[in-house]
Amino acid sequence: MTAEPLTPLPAAAPLGDGAPVLAFDVGGTDTKAALVDAAGRLVQVVRIPTPHAGDATGDAVVAAIAAVAERFRAEHPGVVPQAAGLLVPGHVDDDAGVGIFAENLGWRDFPFRDRAEAALGVPVAFSHDVRGAGEAEHRLGAAAPYRDVVVMAIGTGIAGAIFLDGRLHTGGGLAGEMGHSRVADGPLCACGGIGCLEAVASAAAIARRYNALTGADVPGAREVLALAQSGDEAARAVWDSAVDALALDLSHTVALLAPEAVVIGGGLAQAGPALFEPLAEKLDAILTFHRRPVLLPASIGENAGLIGAALRARDRSAGSAARSVEPSAEVAS
Amino acid sequence: MTAEPLTPLPAAAPLGDGAPVLAFDVGGTDTKAALVDAAGRLVQVVRIPTPHAGDATGDAVVAAIAAVAERFRAEHPGVVPQAAGLLVPGHVDDDAGVGIFAENLGWRDFPFRDRAEAALGVPVAFSHDVRGAGEAEHRLGAAAPYRDVVVMAIGTGIAGAIFLDGRLHTGGGLAGEMGHSRVADGPLCACGGIGCLEAVASAAAIARRYNALTGADVPGAREVLALAQSGDEAARAVWDSAVDALALDLSHTVALLAPEAVVIGGGLAQAGPALFEPLAEKLDAILTFHRRPVLLPASIGENAGLIGAALRARDRSAGSAARSVEPSAEVAS
Repeated sequence: MTAEPLTPLPAAAPLGDGAPVLAFDVGGTDTKAALVDAAGRLVQVVRIPTPHAGDATGDAVVAAIAAVAERFRAEHPGVVPQAAGLLVPGHVDDDAGVGIFAENLGWRDFPFRDRAEAALGVPVAFSHDVRGAGEAEHRLGAAAPYRDVVVMAIGTGIAGAIFLDGRLHTGGGLAGEMGHSRVADGPLCACGGIGCLEAVASAAAIARRYNALTGADVPGAREVLALAQSGDEAARAVWDSAVDALALDLSHTVALLAPEAVVIGGGLAQAGPALFEPLAEKLDAILTFHRRPVLLPASIGENAGLIGAALRARDRSAGSAARSVEPSAEVAS
Repeated sequence: MTAEPLTPLPAAAPLGDGAPVLAFDVGGTDTKAALVDAAGRLVQVVRIPTPHAGDATGDAVVAAIAAVAERFRAEHPGVVPQAAGLLVPGHVDDDAGVGIFAENLGWRDFPFRDRAEAALGVPVAFSHDVRGAGEAEHRLGAAAPYRDVVVMAIGTGIAGAIFLDGRLHTGGGLAGEMGHSRVADGPLCACGGIGCLEAVASAAAIARRYNALTGADVPGAREVLALAQSGDEAARAVWDSAVDALALDLSHTVALLAPEAVVIGGGLAQAGPALFEPLAEKLDAILTFHRRPVLLPASIGENAGLIGAALRARDRSAGSAARSVEPSAEVAS
């Protein structure tokens, strides 16, 4: 993989002082990687194609990130990572360090944390991409002021990171799958469910539904919104029903958890007021006595996953340091 | 209120050794009270009518429980309560110790904890009735084996207590209101919402909907179930649609939180397999890759609220003891 070109990404906001770390955010198509220095600067940020190798995809991903780490080491010998953070999509068991399953990627129960630690030679924090990005929003972004807050990513799919009393709830790696809640009688979802939120209201679904309805071939939700705003009735119907579905699903989240805020990121959040204003109105119309959450756009942007991975890596580094302290040191202090 | 007869209730399972405490569970109609001794036995359990006094209902409730406490003191002078637990319905801010609002009861922002501490002369733990009962199920009942578990009460209303990683999530006192999640296009709910779960599937709603459909006057869901089982098609339709609504709402809870188990108590749970079997089937049919929760009936029964109040009181007693330790004692140890 080292022969592939490394495409630089714009560096994100600095993380503040701490251990130098590596950060990796593995997506279905691309994998982002960053080297973070002791001042929290993203010294280098690159993108490589995510390797697809069937059953061997887990190993290939680990080899690819190890090759990037080697290149960072060669190009920035003064920045010595103390730990790494690794995020992958799909069903992820954070505690066990295992990637259980990811659609379109070949692994099954792959021990990412152990393999990455062996390949990188540093402690590795391992988590789910949406939870990692959510953690960045919760520690450094729009969700930071809140202890009870849901961070949703609405893009190709829909998923979320749930923080209650300031703590991330993982549910064995399966919490935050509100994208696979039934909100309508159709269409069929890729997961096999009927009328899942993701099949109605994800950015991908909005484009797909508009194309199916009209025979058009628009590439994304952005174009559907533009058509709706220019008076296209089919586009307006698709957009409105997507917002209805999001409001209905959010109303369930509100009734169950009463979050103070809901932070929305991912491609659809780029619609700005065209999403947030009708969503707040429709949600308000469903709710009665419930606590109305503040609805906010995510603030960290497309590198939130990398930032979250770096934050996790620093925790892991601090955790390793704490574990290496002799027990007698505590007694003596 | 001391002139009212005290109706003994059957004593519940003992709580184990700890501080002697008072426990109060205030309902819309009746208030239950118990005296718990150091061995965790419910020495005396009584029921009094809940006073209704308009704006003064909060004060009247406190006076009524203080009168019961006085009577316990006279009849059991050897059991000296170290703390009390007090549960009330409605919107309850556990942390602030305030009853914010309860339908059919007159208080608004009433400082129950402070007033009860003044009237009883012991530290008071204050919470919501469903969260208190849920806590009993989580510490001593069907929910005890699980760290991620939702305890639902389905009776006149529907609400739940949510435990994640073993901790109760209160959401400022408004979490667990899944009874007010929209699951259908109707009927109108008492809260002002449309198609709330509680308006479709509570024990009260099942009877109400059957009576509205047929002109009958059955008193409760138990009779609707019996009619459905004897071939009454309207009763079958009402029962089935209630179970459909419960399954749909649970599927949202599962997608969002991925609980290991859902424990169901309240009057409707007494239907046993007639509820739990179709509910599990319908939930399974909606879910795809999600973690299937174990569905279990609550095990503590109608005194779960009292038991929960007593457990909270013991926590408060232990907490008070800890707070009374001189700071220097910790340094010296």
